[in-house]
Amino acid sequence: MRKLLARQHIETPSWAYANSGTRFKVFNQQGIPRDAYEKIADAAQVHRYTGVAPTVAIHIPWDTVDDYADLARFARDEGVAIGAVNPNTFQEDDYRLGSVCNPDPKIRRKAIDHLIECVHIGAETGSKQLSLWFADGTNYPGQDSIRDRQDRMADALAQTYQVMTDVAPEMTMLVEYKFFEPAFYTMDLPDWGTSLLHCLHLGERAKVLVDTGHHAPGTNIEMIVALLLREGRLGGFHFNSRFYADDDLIVGAADPFALFRIMLEIVQAGAVVPSAEGDPAADNSVAFMLDQGHNLEPKIPGEIRSVMNVQEATAKALSVDLDALGTARQAGDVLGANGIVMDAYNTDVRPLLEQVRTDMGLAPDPLAAYAASGYQQKIIEERVGGTAAGWGA
Amino acid sequence: MRKLLARQHIETPSWAYANSGTRFKVFNQQGIPRDAYEKIADAAQVHRYTGVAPTVAIHIPWDTVDDYADLARFARDEGVAIGAVNPNTFQEDDYRLGSVCNPDPKIRRKAIDHLIECVHIGAETGSKQLSLWFADGTNYPGQDSIRDRQDRMADALAQTYQVMTDVAPEMTMLVEYKFFEPAFYTMDLPDWGTSLLHCLHLGERAKVLVDTGHHAPGTNIEMIVALLLREGRLGGFHFNSRFYADDDLIVGAADPFALFRIMLEIVQAGAVVPSAEGDPAADNSVAFMLDQGHNLEPKIPGEIRSVMNVQEATAKALSVDLDALGTARQAGDVLGANGIVMDAYNTDVRPLLEQVRTDMGLAPDPLAAYAASGYQQKIIEERVGGTAAGWGA
Amino acid sequence: MRKLLARQHIETPSWAYANSGTRFKVFNQQGIPRDAYEKIADAAQVHRYTGVAPTVAIHIPWDTVDDYADLARFARDEGVAIGAVNPNTFQEDDYRLGSVCNPDPKIRRKAIDHLIECVHIGAETGSKQLSLWFADGTNYPGQDSIRDRQDRMADALAQTYQVMTDVAPEMTMLVEYKFFEPAFYTMDLPDWGTSLLHCLHLGERAKVLVDTGHHAPGTNIEMIVALLLREGRLGGFHFNSRFYADDDLIVGAADPFALFRIMLEIVQAGAVVPSAEGDPAADNSVAFMLDQGHNLEPKIPGEIRSVMNVQEATAKALSVDLDALGTARQAGDVLGANGIVMDAYNTDVRPLLEQVRTDMGLAPDPLAAYAASGYQQKIIEERVGGTAAGWGA
Amino acid sequence: MRKLLARQHIETPSWAYANSGTRFKVFNQQGIPRDAYEKIADAAQVHRYTGVAPTVAIHIPWDTVDDYADLARFARDEGVAIGAVNPNTFQEDDYRLGSVCNPDPKIRRKAIDHLIECVHIGAETGSKQLSLWFADGTNYPGQDSIRDRQDRMADALAQTYQVMTDVAPEMTMLVEYKFFEPAFYTMDLPDWGTSLLHCLHLGERAKVLVDTGHHAPGTNIEMIVALLLREGRLGGFHFNSRFYADDDLIVGAADPFALFRIMLEIVQAGAVVPSAEGDPAADNSVAFMLDQGHNLEPKIPGEIRSVMNVQEATAKALSVDLDALGTARQAGDVLGANGIVMDAYNTDVRPLLEQVRTDMGLAPDPLAAYAASGYQQKIIEERVGGTAAGWGA
Repeated sequence: MRKLLARQHIETPSWAYANSGTRFKVFNQQGIPRDAYEKIADAAQVHRYTGVAPTVAIHIPWDTVDDYADLARFARDEGVAIGAVNPNTFQEDDYRLGSVCNPDPKIRRKAIDHLIECVHIGAETGSKQLSLWFADGTNYPGQDSIRDRQDRMADALAQTYQVMTDVAPEMTMLVEYKFFEPAFYTMDLPDWGTSLLHCLHLGERAKVLVDTGHHAPGTNIEMIVALLLREGRLGGFHFNSRFYADDDLIVGAADPFALFRIMLEIVQAGAVVPSAEGDPAADNSVAFMLDQGHNLEPKIPGEIRSVMNVQEATAKALSVDLDALGTARQAGDVLGANGIVMDAYNTDVRPLLEQVRTDMGLAPDPLAAYAASGYQQKIIEERVGGTAAGWGA
Repeated sequence: MRKLLARQHIETPSWAYANSGTRFKVFNQQGIPRDAYEKIADAAQVHRYTGVAPTVAIHIPWDTVDDYADLARFARDEGVAIGAVNPNTFQEDDYRLGSVCNPDPKIRRKAIDHLIECVHIGAETGSKQLSLWFADGTNYPGQDSIRDRQDRMADALAQTYQVMTDVAPEMTMLVEYKFFEPAFYTMDLPDWGTSLLHCLHLGERAKVLVDTGHHAPGTNIEMIVALLLREGRLGGFHFNSRFYADDDLIVGAADPFALFRIMLEIVQAGAVVPSAEGDPAADNSVAFMLDQGHNLEPKIPGEIRSVMNVQEATAKALSVDLDALGTARQAGDVLGANGIVMDAYNTDVRPLLEQVRTDMGLAPDPLAAYAASGYQQKIIEERVGGTAAGWGA
Repeated sequence: MRKLLARQHIETPSWAYANSGTRFKVFNQQGIPRDAYEKIADAAQVHRYTGVAPTVAIHIPWDTVDDYADLARFARDEGVAIGAVNPNTFQEDDYRLGSVCNPDPKIRRKAIDHLIECVHIGAETGSKQLSLWFADGTNYPGQDSIRDRQDRMADALAQTYQVMTDVAPEMTMLVEYKFFEPAFYTMDLPDWGTSLLHCLHLGERAKVLVDTGHHAPGTNIEMIVALLLREGRLGGFHFNSRFYADDDLIVGAADPFALFRIMLEIVQAGAVVPSAEGDPAADNSVAFMLDQGHNLEPKIPGEIRSVMNVQEATAKALSVDLDALGTARQAGDVLGANGIVMDAYNTDVRPLLEQVRTDMGLAPDPLAAYAASGYQQKIIEERVGGTAAGWGA
Repeated sequence: MRKLLARQHIETPSWAYANSGTRFKVFNQQGIPRDAYEKIADAAQVHRYTGVAPTVAIHIPWDTVDDYADLARFARDEGVAIGAVNPNTFQEDDYRLGSVCNPDPKIRRKAIDHLIECVHIGAETGSKQLSLWFADGTNYPGQDSIRDRQDRMADALAQTYQVMTDVAPEMTMLVEYKFFEPAFYTMDLPDWGTSLLHCLHLGERAKVLVDTGHHAPGTNIEMIVALLLREGRLGGFHFNSRFYADDDLIVGAADPFALFRIMLEIVQAGAVVPSAEGDPAADNSVAFMLDQGHNLEPKIPGEIRSVMNVQEATAKALSVDLDALGTARQAGDVLGANGIVMDAYNTDVRPLLEQVRTDMGLAPDPLAAYAASGYQQKIIEERVGGTAAGWGA
């Protein structure tokens, strides 16, 4: 178990280090990065103290640079690598009525070109994932044809997939869905079923991305995880937590038991780490990525805490006695089977994870180690002037 | 439009004529049918006064009879026909931990045999649909393996589909899903995506059944309808309405605007009536079925009202100026496109439907005509003694 | 009924005329006002064509001007008046952890001072309502003491109420609540019960404000309306509609039947218009205010449409045969009572409202009249340069 | 902390020992009690092995006996006492349209008489609580007047409160609310605000009962708990857990973190045990009661597990370092304050509770001790013949 925990790979997103907020207010913090390089430097801190966050997702154009090879080199020097590439087709006035699903073909063309540009950036930076989320949808009944928009979505994905196959054969296309927001009446990819349908039509390198905050109230997310794993189509996660909508809180903060149940499905499917690294055909690997907004709390400690929460949930899930569980299930022992799972959940795995970190040559308490490092004071002092990166910048 | 409205086909369920209730109480009404024949007689009343409810769904074993050919004949004599056959795999103690997904293979065998029995009943009665809903699921995290249960579900459906192909080539298998209840932690078919995945693996005669009450709060049902129509996999509806869970209220009673929006997707897909009757290959027909429980209100008037509500929603949807709508959509005119849809919704279509009924030789007001017929008094007087049929009996 | 409809009073908010959006993007429109005067000019257009929107709510500091008496005069010249005054205690970095509930007493003092400033603005502009909504709350379990925050809220409200009593005896304090957003774990005023409790402790001039978008899924809003009317504590509405969260869509766009049911409670309580104008003691008047964000659609037509939607819901509610309804209810005739209500809802009241407008000397179709007026073109041409007002500016 | 945990008092309900189920099926188990005496005997087992479940709630008429003094004596002999008395006004055909809110005054009279009868039973059995839950509500818009029903509710509660004051001065009236089910459109007591309003009008001995399963999705229950504690009006809990509706699962099974957060509010208010036993005036005691249905799992072990879950949540809540928490809150340290709470939650308190039990002279593992006792085998063998008690019997 310790070996698995040491090999776990949890990606942090460049945008988590920037200012963020709600539609009501983006609160400014001190020491916020002002460009992609500074974001990667911050992400490298999270890896430095946890040892399991070796990649950083980037968002284009928020992280646009002149020379992506240079950015990748910089990341390597900081001890991390570029992770998923995330196109942005929602922050221009052109996209008011949608991007790839817009009724206007010129705007669809522009959006598709941006997706293709991101495939090329992925190839240049050595990224393994093109991570697609669309804000597309409608606000009012009748506003646009649901079916036409599906056709347009299918066309855009197919064009992009084709380019990906041609120029970035090691990339996987991750197709995210979202139940609601920022469109209110329809989202063009509202649920895992819609994303999966598109993936099935595209081909094997298209998989579904599950953002834990993107579901209707009461949805059983681990059920979706199990279904996608069974179909070989779970591409990855955007982890975060929420009480009501897409709150983007620290993963595990709102419902740690739900996170544990998700990780238990991962454990039961043997997908905590790639089962056959180097053999893409047998690859069942799932990309564990954070996607959060630390509106009130400091960014780097927030990400460290999030990585630790995923580790704790994983460690608990790995603690489940699967043999005993199988026996209880087969016997129809409802309380017994549940009890086996709860015993693992109620175990305090923090000492185990401290040991894992010590074995990896790390401090046992990443938050304390980061606090003691002086990095936070340094960036607060150094990062004055320039424009602090914000959500959407 | 009048012609389409006159040809619309809305099936009522035999169980809607029986006593029903909640887990707290099943309230007894007077004049309740005591067997399948009396239920069909009641259903025939609904057709008599609306003209658009020519079939009756049956539920086995609630409607078990010695001679199904005789039951079909009786129905024909009453002016109706047997509609979908609905197996029941949830009302025996054996099914405590599930039916086709039960960990015990003997119980799975029993459940599958019952499904197959229902295929044969379908063949005998001339039914066109095998309508499958499973109460299967689990109540507690860890209770059973989500993935194993999917495998068991797939196996049961495949066995049944094979028999259906062999003995009832005109039947379609409708695979219903339900977000929640009676299992609380997982339902084995919780959403349209799961049902569709199974259908895709089964073959073309397997389609998804949408029960309007079986979704998470905030789910956009017309989006699902549009998606399934686009894939050619919308098999039919169980219509009802709800405020919170699966309330099984009169369709259109809780949110008439949502019903209208669903019918608008049907209209836009040209699926109000079968497009090519007699040509099964081109068949895009959707089975419109009611699935309701009239806990407080009288049964037959409740069903008549429900049929009328579907008609009104259909008539409003048919009133939408689709050409103007297409133009407004293409122009990105959000308020205009929404306004065109709202204009149709705000139209009072009751006079139009009265005309449709008059053209069909019916009384314009079905509820008044039924009330004046004396049927209700008759059954109250005649149906004394015996056991009133209840939900589950 | 026509007389009541002509006397109905629906307030529009100054911020509805500014750019708005989600946390993902605020889309820019042309012709957007650049200060409070231009917003009032736009609001006056809505009144010009509907005849029932004679007041404009203002938001401080978004609508800060040097001379409020001058602003009130300008409004009067445009044919409208200043409505509710809305303080803003959420768009400064100081308010990151709350305003009146902040753990820091200096920030609480600042927030309370702003509330008191708004009372004075209300007195200067002749406003009748101080409309209080707080973004206060917490994002993480444990972040702050729920109870201490209630004590701080009570103290802030009491101080403000005292000043209101002293300097603006004709004002009512409206205490709004919101289930969720922008705080995610707790909102300090999450529901009508919490708002009402504070009002009961404050005194008779404190009443609850119901924003139709601020409830948990499945909440029966007309029930809350009826309960507050029964207690004499319904102060007013912020009307809008939503599919999932606080979408701020055009009122009646998402669920027109729900809006009708709300208006039916108003009608049954005799509160469509003030029952005893001039006699504050017997005043049961309810302030009907819009609170919407027209992210995709044009602002002024969006507001006109919204006013018309409230009128249509009111006209339908006034069409209910209350005598027949009372008889059916007393007889326990479930279908009959529901049918009486549905008959009114299914009535097309648009011709009636056209007549009401004609009687008022207005064009029957306000949207067409506005479109023909040339105003939209005029503001697009004239309002170049300066900073377009946005949500929060 | 150990002392508090040993003194905690968690009441179990007589109906938890009977068969239960959903509207789809009540599954029969073996060894089910056949009368109130056998239910109390089973409840006494739960107390025997946990030491903290010394009372049993009864439900009338499910637990009707000829001689309540004799029942109380039997309970005492078994080592327990009669807890809350729960009237039932929902399982007769008369109550189809409601009980105390029924439009028919004769049915209201019948229902009120039953409430009063239960006050007398409470006095005879030494019960401290009259626990009122009403299934009253409506299914269809328009069905009945919301406001008239409130008036009828107020009248019924007032009559009952008066009798309680006269004949059972030590009883508290607990007024439960429920968001939904079995009525679908309105529940007459849908939320804590409505219950509290009635309590405020009644007097000090009327308090609100919070059933953890009776809220809208996303509702923050600990917020309600804190609000009611602040008003001195939290009467007690019905504990259970749910994923979607009112699932009545084992408390802590669906969201153990939420249960912990509730107990943390109790701990912060000093209300884990009565603060001033014997001094009713200063009584802030909260009745911790279970209200669950063990549809699939065995009853007595299900209740033992539930009691243990409440204990674990309480022990974790008592582990929070409240001083450090206060300091972090005052400093605005969001991550720090949350971290202090999470540290307590992540602590494994099972060894501590084993020690508490050992100190109390109990076996450390109540489930194992019960399993070893042979009681389950004994009741399976002895309880044959007669009618097994079911939910509602």
